[in-house]
Amino acid sequence: MPRIEVLRLGHRLVRDDRVTTHVGLAARAFGADRIHLLNCDPDVKHRIDEVTSKWGGKFEAEVTEEWRGLIRTWKERGGLVIHLTMYGINLDDVITSIRNSKKDLLLLISAEKAPPEAFDLSDYNLAIGHQPHSEVAALAIFLDRYFEGVELKRGFQGSKVQIIPSARGKELEMSR
Amino acid sequence: MPRIEVLRLGHRLVRDDRVTTHVGLAARAFGADRIHLLNCDPDVKHRIDEVTSKWGGKFEAEVTEEWRGLIRTWKERGGLVIHLTMYGINLDDVITSIRNSKKDLLLLISAEKAPPEAFDLSDYNLAIGHQPHSEVAALAIFLDRYFEGVELKRGFQGSKVQIIPSARGKELEMSR
Repeated sequence: MPRIEVLRLGHRLVRDDRVTTHVGLAARAFGADRIHLLNCDPDVKHRIDEVTSKWGGKFEAEVTEEWRGLIRTWKERGGLVIHLTMYGINLDDVITSIRNSKKDLLLLISAEKAPPEAFDLSDYNLAIGHQPHSEVAALAIFLDRYFEGVELKRGFQGSKVQIIPSARGKELEMSR
Repeated sequence: MPRIEVLRLGHRLVRDDRVTTHVGLAARAFGADRIHLLNCDPDVKHRIDEVTSKWGGKFEAEVTEEWRGLIRTWKERGGLVIHLTMYGINLDDVITSIRNSKKDLLLLISAEKAPPEAFDLSDYNLAIGHQPHSEVAALAIFLDRYFEGVELKRGFQGSKVQIIPSARGKELEMSR
């Protein structure tokens, strides 16, 4: 299986904490393996780690202060770098060839303004629609298309609890 | 065309402002017609309205202090109320029958904890996967499945600018 990691750029302290947490949780829930949190409050990593500990799986959150080296190394090892931006080419035009490449993917997810270098350093600048919306939505839609919806039914190993789908109310089961 | 509106519940002042803004922008970008913002800073409405003014379309954002009456009226008029929650039944099991019903949809989107009544007042409690992630992601995935991806290519009338999809950098065109 190709490895999928997310690099969260442009996080502004405090202001973006909750959105960055949502980016991390969406990355995990929709099938990515790791998120790199650039210049981010360690509390955000802590909240993501708590979810992984309770709900299972091997998702990793890392706080980092450097991103250009990460991109360079990723490309040297043959992985693709994909920047999600409303200015890019349409997702549907290239998602099949990205999936078929079977290459590891590093997804660049920016808060409001992407650093100009992100456009140049990436193999693909990809748009999830050409309207302003949300990097959380963009990441979720990308992963949903990449995995063709299968990720929504996959299990997470080692969870302490799991949900029993219910038409009314909340049903939880403690894992054995 | 059925009408789709979003009711944002459980917003906590300041703390959720940015996530609620993302919910509103995702609602607009993925094809909903209106968002009702419960007990929300008018600045959030203002930011969503600014995007609509610049990027086009007829999306409406309204601040409200009452939600039970809205749900009651919606159901009296024959519309469906759909609560997005990780505890619900699987999206894929019912999205086709929801689409085929051709009924207007009111989507309930909660911040961290949904009010217990939301589970009872809704026609469907629907899960976008059974893992904790983000209401922004949940809303985007729901609308993407409902519209079968077509919403990502639709135009927004009356925009002041539009994007020319580009493999590198940002290209904008002023609308005529």
